Amino acid sequence: MKSHTVYITFNTKKRRELIRITEKVEEAVRESRIKEGFALVSAMHITAGVIVNDDEEGFKEDFWEWAEKLAPYRRDYRHHLTGEDNCDAHLKSLLVHHQVVLPITDGKLDLGPWQQIFYAEFDGQRPKRLVIKLIGE
Amino acid sequence: MKSHTVYITFNTKKRRELIRITEKVEEAVRESRIKEGFALVSAMHITAGVIVNDDEEGFKEDFWEWAEKLAPYRRDYRHHLTGEDNCDAHLKSLLVHHQVVLPITDGKLDLGPWQQIFYAEFDGQRPKRLVIKLIGE
Amino acid sequence: MKSHTVYITFNTKKRRELIRITEKVEEAVRESRIKEGFALVSAMHITAGVIVNDDEEGFKEDFWEWAEKLAPYRRDYRHHLTGEDNCDAHLKSLLVHHQVVLPITDGKLDLGPWQQIFYAEFDGQRPKRLVIKLIGE
Repeated sequence: MKSHTVYITFNTKKRRELIRITEKVEEAVRESRIKEGFALVSAMHITAGVIVNDDEEGFKEDFWEWAEKLAPYRRDYRHHLTGEDNCDAHLKSLLVHHQVVLPITDGKLDLGPWQQIFYAEFDGQRPKRLVIKLIGE
Repeated sequence: MKSHTVYITFNTKKRRELIRITEKVEEAVRESRIKEGFALVSAMHITAGVIVNDDEEGFKEDFWEWAEKLAPYRRDYRHHLTGEDNCDAHLKSLLVHHQVVLPITDGKLDLGPWQQIFYAEFDGQRPKRLVIKLIGE
Repeated sequence: MKSHTVYITFNTKKRRELIRITEKVEEAVRESRIKEGFALVSAMHITAGVIVNDDEEGFKEDFWEWAEKLAPYRRDYRHHLTGEDNCDAHLKSLLVHHQVVLPITDGKLDLGPWQQIFYAEFDGQRPKRLVIKLIGE
């Protein structure tokens, strides 16, 4: 069995951003020389997510509106009594999940035609890490 | 390490359907001859999901009502300016997640007593692919 | 390839509880002697979830309020015609997902600084099982 681990640090200019990382994951697959296996792509913070969806500008705006509706920013979360103001980011992370697992087949990411991988930053403007871990053969 | 990959194409009659695929995944496990490992079951389209839940008719109706409430069909999504009208299907895919990972133990899917696996089609009536990928030993 | 499988049974006093299980998963990693691999932590019931988030009391209260808002308890779910009254627990399980996959690196769970793993019981007060399955080398 082979394994390969890559850490990526994001420090977004905006508090909330969707960052396409398909190419970063593809690069990790090439480096790993794994032909058949799995790639785990997982946020290492509890205020970020990883999604697979469409790299289309209109959709991305709809996504943010939807995430805000279902896990809205509010001042009065109890978590904010700790001095934080990012409880919505914790809930958005739970809503979309903080990770995906991608199949590796014949040495390549085995994605469908429209599947793009995104790091979803819900509370950025500071260094945040993502781990890409691959296992296989 | 062994691996085994199966693709299934769905072309549903209705736009939205829940299709039980537990037996398809069990078949892939048998074919793989893997005794201990993981089975990834993942939609290859961004308008479908994979869930593990109850094969009970009332629940399935409740599921659809719930998914429609949290990720409703609307005409006015920005994504629809591209000519599409399936933005709700993208959001439903994010809501329930597009994949699950199942444990394989002693040569069998290691599921609890009520766990059934479903492909959740949110925008069907055309060919859509699912990948089942197993790794283990 | 090595594998290791641990089952944990919960029987919560309250119907709904968040139970921190990071230490249980760490213990399974040590027992497995796996240096590089994946740990799947997955509820074996369809009325429970597994999440990675913050072990902070205020956040946990916010979490329950949020889950109740998005997947509320109601008497009139169709699923309840079977005699059950836990349809909200099924939907909460879908909302937060019933599983996570954790990377194992250098013999340890490769978590970020604030990531804690929780079993989320949505319909307890009876024995419910969780599986921790590790594969790697």
